[in-house]
Amino acid sequence: MYSFKNDYSEGAHPRILNALIASNMDQEEGYGYDRHTQNAVSKIKNIMQNQNIDVHFISGGTQTNLIAIGAFLKPYEACISVNTGHIAVNETGAIEYTGHKVITIDSNDGKIIPEKIKEVLNSHSNEHVVKPKLVYISNTTELGTIYTKKELKNLSEFCKSNNLILYADGARLGSAICVKEADLTLSDMCNFTDAFFIGGTKNGALLGEALVIKNENLKEDFKYHIKQKGALLAKGRLLGIQFEELFTDNLYFELANHANEMANLLSKGLKEANCKFLIDSPTNQIFPILENKIIKRLEKKFNFYTWKKIDDNYSAIRLVTSWATKKEAVLEFINELKK
Amino acid sequence: MYSFKNDYSEGAHPRILNALIASNMDQEEGYGYDRHTQNAVSKIKNIMQNQNIDVHFISGGTQTNLIAIGAFLKPYEACISVNTGHIAVNETGAIEYTGHKVITIDSNDGKIIPEKIKEVLNSHSNEHVVKPKLVYISNTTELGTIYTKKELKNLSEFCKSNNLILYADGARLGSAICVKEADLTLSDMCNFTDAFFIGGTKNGALLGEALVIKNENLKEDFKYHIKQKGALLAKGRLLGIQFEELFTDNLYFELANHANEMANLLSKGLKEANCKFLIDSPTNQIFPILENKIIKRLEKKFNFYTWKKIDDNYSAIRLVTSWATKKEAVLEFINELKK
Amino acid sequence: MYSFKNDYSEGAHPRILNALIASNMDQEEGYGYDRHTQNAVSKIKNIMQNQNIDVHFISGGTQTNLIAIGAFLKPYEACISVNTGHIAVNETGAIEYTGHKVITIDSNDGKIIPEKIKEVLNSHSNEHVVKPKLVYISNTTELGTIYTKKELKNLSEFCKSNNLILYADGARLGSAICVKEADLTLSDMCNFTDAFFIGGTKNGALLGEALVIKNENLKEDFKYHIKQKGALLAKGRLLGIQFEELFTDNLYFELANHANEMANLLSKGLKEANCKFLIDSPTNQIFPILENKIIKRLEKKFNFYTWKKIDDNYSAIRLVTSWATKKEAVLEFINELKK
Amino acid sequence: MYSFKNDYSEGAHPRILNALIASNMDQEEGYGYDRHTQNAVSKIKNIMQNQNIDVHFISGGTQTNLIAIGAFLKPYEACISVNTGHIAVNETGAIEYTGHKVITIDSNDGKIIPEKIKEVLNSHSNEHVVKPKLVYISNTTELGTIYTKKELKNLSEFCKSNNLILYADGARLGSAICVKEADLTLSDMCNFTDAFFIGGTKNGALLGEALVIKNENLKEDFKYHIKQKGALLAKGRLLGIQFEELFTDNLYFELANHANEMANLLSKGLKEANCKFLIDSPTNQIFPILENKIIKRLEKKFNFYTWKKIDDNYSAIRLVTSWATKKEAVLEFINELKK
Repeated sequence: MYSFKNDYSEGAHPRILNALIASNMDQEEGYGYDRHTQNAVSKIKNIMQNQNIDVHFISGGTQTNLIAIGAFLKPYEACISVNTGHIAVNETGAIEYTGHKVITIDSNDGKIIPEKIKEVLNSHSNEHVVKPKLVYISNTTELGTIYTKKELKNLSEFCKSNNLILYADGARLGSAICVKEADLTLSDMCNFTDAFFIGGTKNGALLGEALVIKNENLKEDFKYHIKQKGALLAKGRLLGIQFEELFTDNLYFELANHANEMANLLSKGLKEANCKFLIDSPTNQIFPILENKIIKRLEKKFNFYTWKKIDDNYSAIRLVTSWATKKEAVLEFINELKK
Repeated sequence: MYSFKNDYSEGAHPRILNALIASNMDQEEGYGYDRHTQNAVSKIKNIMQNQNIDVHFISGGTQTNLIAIGAFLKPYEACISVNTGHIAVNETGAIEYTGHKVITIDSNDGKIIPEKIKEVLNSHSNEHVVKPKLVYISNTTELGTIYTKKELKNLSEFCKSNNLILYADGARLGSAICVKEADLTLSDMCNFTDAFFIGGTKNGALLGEALVIKNENLKEDFKYHIKQKGALLAKGRLLGIQFEELFTDNLYFELANHANEMANLLSKGLKEANCKFLIDSPTNQIFPILENKIIKRLEKKFNFYTWKKIDDNYSAIRLVTSWATKKEAVLEFINELKK
Repeated sequence: MYSFKNDYSEGAHPRILNALIASNMDQEEGYGYDRHTQNAVSKIKNIMQNQNIDVHFISGGTQTNLIAIGAFLKPYEACISVNTGHIAVNETGAIEYTGHKVITIDSNDGKIIPEKIKEVLNSHSNEHVVKPKLVYISNTTELGTIYTKKELKNLSEFCKSNNLILYADGARLGSAICVKEADLTLSDMCNFTDAFFIGGTKNGALLGEALVIKNENLKEDFKYHIKQKGALLAKGRLLGIQFEELFTDNLYFELANHANEMANLLSKGLKEANCKFLIDSPTNQIFPILENKIIKRLEKKFNFYTWKKIDDNYSAIRLVTSWATKKEAVLEFINELKK
Repeated sequence: MYSFKNDYSEGAHPRILNALIASNMDQEEGYGYDRHTQNAVSKIKNIMQNQNIDVHFISGGTQTNLIAIGAFLKPYEACISVNTGHIAVNETGAIEYTGHKVITIDSNDGKIIPEKIKEVLNSHSNEHVVKPKLVYISNTTELGTIYTKKELKNLSEFCKSNNLILYADGARLGSAICVKEADLTLSDMCNFTDAFFIGGTKNGALLGEALVIKNENLKEDFKYHIKQKGALLAKGRLLGIQFEELFTDNLYFELANHANEMANLLSKGLKEANCKFLIDSPTNQIFPILENKIIKRLEKKFNFYTWKKIDDNYSAIRLVTSWATKKEAVLEFINELKK
């Protein structure tokens, strides 16, 4: 049964496996002091056109979020997220475990706007309530939507003028910046945020996210935080080699492009079948609304999540494509749907 | 320059890489619900001759220690460790970050004995001091020494009769149970502890430790703890496949045997050169005492840690072997020493 | 300028001061082992008609909430509160600092109903999200409303059948159970919850809340939690003596009655002046809606909070009465209003 | 039975009770914004001859330590204390609960010296171990000894040049600075430390410690920390009034002097009876070594702690005097001893 359940159903892109094999018996320093990690850092600095950033490789998204937010905030400071934010719902209270409140803002499209943050700031002004200090966004959002350059710039300026840290979860950043609708580059992400991460796990790596810290005040002793949270891999090379390869010959972007193309193909087919969508998402997650009986039929041949009940007869499902998604599987899904 | 600095200088054993390649494009469930993880769990249950244990795969030793100890203890409970214990010194306060004190006991050989625990219990008897609840041991210890079956049994009985949890860090458990001096099996480790982990990172895996929980009271909802600490890998297969392979055709034990043999070869050569040792360690870490000028000479050709100053002219160094250590390198080291 | 800002503007009821003076030079054991504390515990057990409860005296409401919730929950468990709950908004993230998420439920009257809890349970069913485990209510609520016996009984049964802990914040419990609309007794509070506290600070004490723990599973080693959070007063007698006095000759209830009577007098006067209210609250907090220009006039003679903007011309204010509120001040306020 | 068990057996000095009574029915702002608190702050600033310090009143010593240390340190930073330090042994892991390791240094007299700190710094130099950042001292120490001006100055200079925070626990600071052997003033304490607290609980108050923060970097948003830890009393006046009174007409110093005189009287009598001491402590805690059979006899008439076994026949006991200790009780104790 073919799965459109998520973008981490397969292992790694073959080029990444080959890179692991090629370097396997070389002796390297542990804990991220190996040559591959250093090289991957250089490549990312070059892409960002910024040699002053710090780059750290961490095994997964929740791990990166909790280390970064736990490191950036003082005990009484809080973060702001939309109600669908990964840190707000899908991390088993990881942020709260680091001691920080996640203040949620209602949003229909997974995106946050300055006006909503302003409301939070207005209601948090003394020592009886937490002090909002960090704005958490994700790009793509958990609903597959993306930020435009203008939106991110506005958010960035608002945060700066309100002394807030802007932090972006980029678990699916590849998909976000590679869609044709996007006008944001990796370098823009760096310019407009204080810190953000470039997701590897969901874009062809076995595991790994690259955390980029631009804000000087957030850099100090960051490896201590990684180690204290148990996230400093002895064989740090495992992360370094993967990102080294992902940022060689544009592999990272190629993989994201493939995921986006497959999602577009799916969307096109669904629209041809007159299907509506829960939300207009241009990236590798789409949320078509289907009749329940059709969903049941599709479930016999495909694996995916039913996302939300729409009414007694209809539900939205979530279909996710990835670097590994096969075009034939997409076409088969559309055929099955149109039956 | 050849390195005897640690047992994680190379990548993974080729059989592990091959297993990753062979399964790479199969679609699997995420978060440890894949078939390989389930199979690896089965294999470990069979080795333990105990179908009632829970097994969880976690990326590294510090990560495993902090999740396990954080999960097992109530906020005011503390753990007891020898002064050289990994949790006491080398985890950047990871255990304290989970809120728990590490009470240290003096020890010359890295091992803990009931009499010393008894002293701690006697001085902790009311609500003004923490409540000691968990005894942390490591096997091999951080000094390369091992527990005998009798020692572990005594410790186990003492802990049971004092309502203490006995937890073992097995980052180098392979080496510990495979030396000829050992009379402990993996199954004994399971019988005599409440929980322990089988180290993969230092015995041929890219990353990964297998945490075994035997005590019923410690099992509940354990995956929540893993997720909350950011350690639930999306591609859990990466850990499952490695342990599946390690416990196929005795690979785990073969790799540990090789590491031990190389350490023995080193020891033998050192003894022939009339070298003394900081401690008598039969496993893959040895601590020879050498003249400083000889150390300086060796450092030109080999990479290793100088462990401890003995006097103005002598120091102890640490030499670590692994599944990947080359016999020629060992012989070369001995030759260089004897010059 | 007379203050209706809160119920902690004055010191303690004179009988409490007298009790402190009378016992002042007696030597007593520290840390709550004094005779007054033991006596106060006995009195509370008798009122509850339950000799099996545990009673602990803690300096304030936030302190009590964070110690209790921090003690009752495992790291990945969360509490559920209405959006206006004290732990959700007014404790500077104290609960999150203990590591636990506060899941909020929308509510207009400050009260929580089983249906809303059910929705939360339905959306929290695996290890990727926190596990809701404790329901936090307050009586009176932060909006001055109260639970009926039937409501609390329903909530209690729902929690029991869903394996949830029901915990009540009783910072203003005196006012809640003494209003004529109330059909709940202190003993009912004990029967229907797993734990709750009886507020002293806002009902005539200098400081202090009495935490009652009924559920056997929540009692173990509780003093360790109090001490670890820095809340075990060396001179525990200070709390014991006050509660001893509060529960002698019904002082606690008399003081609450006075506060309620003064609030009623205020309400009556406001209604006579055709004033509407933000919410119908029978207890010692009332929320009249007044024209902004009237509010400005009143502010010249009285101290109170403006609670909420209603429209461009009207706002709701909060008036709080207490054991110490003077009848003349109430009458003066009404006169001023009616001018 | 008269108690020499501690310095918190009685209530408060009558002048403090009188001050509470005199101000009792005045309406004051909550949470430390009352006039008495502001006045007490002014008085303390004047004594320190420093108008730039921040002063916060907190209910007890453990509470103050955990709030201050938790506020001053980043997650991976640790504090250094002697092995007998209150934070190291007698706070039920309160500091670890805030996430920080307490590194202990051996000491026979309860005092810390730069050489010992230097050793700790030398062994903590990378991200695999915590980063020592705060030096915790107590004056008097837990063994009743005191720091000389020279010793504190040296420590202060060492800390400054090593970028360490120097923090002093002054639970018994009154006794420390009032003994005739002392050459330190309150103002010196302020000059030589980054922060310290002036103990009220053990010197005549019902409860309360005055935390003085001199270092600019440690001041920001401190009230948020107090509130988040549940320590911001609604009736903050209770603390303000007491310190206002303690620092009026030298009451604080008078009370400490009385405690010291009573301890001296006890020491003198014990020495006349040829008694030896565990340690030479000039302050209100003394540790005479007595024959066990004499201890048993004394225990029939007096309450005190047996501190330490010396040999099969002898033990050290701890005798504590306070502002409330009666001269007759001291003389009676000596008489009983000499029998």
